[in-house]
Amino acid sequence: MPAQIINGKKISEEIKQEVKKQAEALYKETGIVPGLAFILVGDNPASKVYVTMKGKACEELGFYSITLKLPAETTEEELLQKIQNLNSDPKIHGILVQLPLPSHINEQKILQAIDPIKDVDGFHPVNVGKLVIGLETYLPCTPAGIQELLKRSGINPSGKHVVVLGRSNIVGKPIANILLQKKEWANATVTICHTGTKDISYFTKQADILIVAMGKPEFVKGDMIKPGAVVIDVGVNRVDDPSSEKGYKLVGDVHFESAYEVASAITPVPGGVGPMTIAMLMKNTLQAAINQIAVKQLSN
Amino acid sequence: MPAQIINGKKISEEIKQEVKKQAEALYKETGIVPGLAFILVGDNPASKVYVTMKGKACEELGFYSITLKLPAETTEEELLQKIQNLNSDPKIHGILVQLPLPSHINEQKILQAIDPIKDVDGFHPVNVGKLVIGLETYLPCTPAGIQELLKRSGINPSGKHVVVLGRSNIVGKPIANILLQKKEWANATVTICHTGTKDISYFTKQADILIVAMGKPEFVKGDMIKPGAVVIDVGVNRVDDPSSEKGYKLVGDVHFESAYEVASAITPVPGGVGPMTIAMLMKNTLQAAINQIAVKQLSN
Ligand SMILES: NC(=O)c1ccc[n+]([C@@H]2O[C@H](COP(=O)([O-])OP(=O)(O)OC[C@H]3O[C@@H](n4cnc5c(N)ncnc54)[C@H](OP(=O)(O)O)[C@@H]3O)[C@@H](O)[C@H]2O)c1
Ligand SMILES: NC(=O)c1ccc[n+]([C@@H]2O[C@H](COP(=O)([O-])OP(=O)(O)OC[C@H]3O[C@@H](n4cnc5c(N)ncnc54)[C@H](OP(=O)(O)O)[C@@H]3O)[C@@H](O)[C@H]2O)c1
Repeated sequence: MPAQIINGKKISEEIKQEVKKQAEALYKETGIVPGLAFILVGDNPASKVYVTMKGKACEELGFYSITLKLPAETTEEELLQKIQNLNSDPKIHGILVQLPLPSHINEQKILQAIDPIKDVDGFHPVNVGKLVIGLETYLPCTPAGIQELLKRSGINPSGKHVVVLGRSNIVGKPIANILLQKKEWANATVTICHTGTKDISYFTKQADILIVAMGKPEFVKGDMIKPGAVVIDVGVNRVDDPSSEKGYKLVGDVHFESAYEVASAITPVPGGVGPMTIAMLMKNTLQAAINQIAVKQLSN
Repeated sequence: MPAQIINGKKISEEIKQEVKKQAEALYKETGIVPGLAFILVGDNPASKVYVTMKGKACEELGFYSITLKLPAETTEEELLQKIQNLNSDPKIHGILVQLPLPSHINEQKILQAIDPIKDVDGFHPVNVGKLVIGLETYLPCTPAGIQELLKRSGINPSGKHVVVLGRSNIVGKPIANILLQKKEWANATVTICHTGTKDISYFTKQADILIVAMGKPEFVKGDMIKPGAVVIDVGVNRVDDPSSEKGYKLVGDVHFESAYEVASAITPVPGGVGPMTIAMLMKNTLQAAINQIAVKQLSN
């Protein structure tokens, strides 16, 4: 039986509608509109597309947003100054520095300059640490989106063997650390694989839930998947496609056609994990506004 | 062939001697002696023993150390005040709050009050986050000790399947996150198991390196171990032993006799991981002194 297709587009729309309603209620109660600042350094075309998409989501949900477009030559010091300004700007509740940054800028220094309460990407070490310890924090958007996809599809990772391919700080490590927590919609036995793993298939074939975040087009084939497994494909890769108008198409890290025949459920690319990232960013930004209102009330 | 016994007692002595020499060199160069403050709240007998042992190690290595013994009724606020004082005390480079704390005190609030540069236990969220991201930081002492035991026994986890039993914030999670890093003496494929894991044996039998930190006396038997595996037993459990004078003995989380017949290398209890924890604490404290000297020089 071919797999259930997990519709990330639809689920992300539901989440955005929920967040929109909650933001409206917040506004009625407090007069405050969640505000998100994007910082875009240089002209990486993909980064521009991402920031535009995130800005549109803000509009859709009635959030306030600004985009600082800075030239590629911006110095680290100038960027730090911009972040300081945003840290103390009461209209801004979330700050998102679109990665990657030009190579002359120390990415970690920049991420650590963001006030953790405004770190809606969840990349500040203190927020990463809180996630791992199991404390309340902003979960990084893509892994949070994966957990939410599972939840809203009724797929409970508890007691399951989750195998994660990839150990990036953006996807692999945080999703592993989220799903191993002793919490609802987590509590999985988690294995994490990477280029150091000797026999990837040996591990993928054991997965009840296989999460692939490698950036390797169609790496995982159907014969690497246990029949009935759930497959979450995080990869977004451009590959040549002379038959398409643009000359390319987007594929995941999973070979969809063969995986679809074996899995019990699978996320498509595009329309799976991708749209969830932005929905979770909106959720984090709303939460950031709520947190900052609470802090203000406490200090009054 | 029975297993090689990994002698943590001996290895920890070597490390302490190295740290002692480095501390002497630091003193000659800067006139500064690494200083460590212990905070002990209440009269948990095990905690007292641990703090005494750590204090003795400081003496042995010529470190300055003080112990604040506070009554069980100490309030959170009083404890926070003590930590603030130690944070600004230039003779103190490391602060260690012995856990567990009495239940009326919020442990996380206390751990987060310690200046991260003095957090030689590596429990502050910002240091946990740095560990996970792969940045320089103080590694929590027990997991750091495990990695060091492997290293000094010539057992390289790179490319190996490491299975960790236990997901505590003190041992399980950090050792998993340390060994999955793309770094020397790490780079393992890591699986983490816990009470939510359905069939523990299924996983333990796959381990090239099995790390057990459960607090369950002699839980892991020889027949759960792959022949030739390396077994690291973190558990320290008191069990009744009428034949001993004290009426009890210490055993690990691994059934030593049966595991010893199957494994290629194994840590005993006591004398395995245990003594490494203190050695790594001394190493972290020396590093903390070095870091604080560097910060001072930068700000001059
Ligand atoms: N919203 C979204 O949908 C979203 C968000 C983020 C990322 N993505 C996509 O997800 C993919 C992964 O992103 P990322 O940022 O996590 O990538 P990344 O930083 O490049 O990390 C890739 C990870 O995959 C591992 N890997 C690569 N090739 C491998 C191989 N042949 N065998 C085993 N492991 C291998 C790497 O191992 P080593 O650590 O050993 O090098 C690394 O840990 C990309 O396609 C990206 O575009 C999508
Ligand atoms: N220096 C040292 O030598 C040193 C340092 C620290 C600890 N230790 C010793 O190491 C042991 C573990 O310490 P800890 O602080 O990590 O303990 P802990 O906080 O009690 O955590 C124990 C972990 O083991 C898991 N676990 C317990 N029973 C299990 C079972 N039957 N099946 C599967 N998983 C099980 C628990 O799972 P859940 O998360 O699902 O509850 C938990 O994650 C103790 O004996 C402790 O004394 C020694």
